[in-house]
Amino acid sequence: MKKINLASKYKKITEHWSPKVVAEMNDYQFKLAKVNNDFIWHSHEDTDETFIVIEGKIYIEFEDETVELSEGEMIVVPKGKKHRPYADEEAKIMLIEPKGVRNTGDIVSDLTSDDNQWI
Amino acid sequence: MKKINLASKYKKITEHWSPKVVAEMNDYQFKLAKVNNDFIWHSHEDTDETFIVIEGKIYIEFEDETVELSEGEMIVVPKGKKHRPYADEEAKIMLIEPKGVRNTGDIVSDLTSDDNQWI
Repeated sequence: MKKINLASKYKKITEHWSPKVVAEMNDYQFKLAKVNNDFIWHSHEDTDETFIVIEGKIYIEFEDETVELSEGEMIVVPKGKKHRPYADEEAKIMLIEPKGVRNTGDIVSDLTSDDNQWI
Repeated sequence: MKKINLASKYKKITEHWSPKVVAEMNDYQFKLAKVNNDFIWHSHEDTDETFIVIEGKIYIEFEDETVELSEGEMIVVPKGKKHRPYADEEAKIMLIEPKGVRNTGDIVSDLTSDDNQWI
């Protein structure tokens, strides 16, 4: 049985907005990411997506409001809902979603990262 | 869009070993629990189960080893694997698993808590 230490895993992450898989539960994955500055508008047509802030603060802009999420806060973005995460300073987040979800959802851009990168 | 603040949710929890649902993602639930002292041996035949330690320290005893999990550490217990969580002092944990999972798995005991209790 292998436990996962989040702080140790974050030390292996150098890029922003490039989620790395640290664990799998059934057909779901736990991914860690460091984020800063702007991400792009996108949505995931087939699944909800969970954000948990592990350190720092992020914002998620929706079409009608912006939600601020600090350390110890989480949100579940419903499937199909357009959102744009961003941060003013580097923050550390955990994403939980089914295997095979593209980080930029319905969009392919410079910010699209390879799927299923384990650390 | 509603964010969840974990510290605020924990203030609503008084019992030990009684997981409370705080969010749903597709057919999965995020549950918070305060734990202390011994839980019982059990397994979940149909699903993996994820433990994340939010505050304090817990132990999970398996048939061949015991894993210590501190704040910022997590583990995915594979389906069917017998395990017994315990803590020496009160700790705060998050559980992630499909809807409808009984906390005591294949066992019904005094520690079995009602399913789907939201806070």
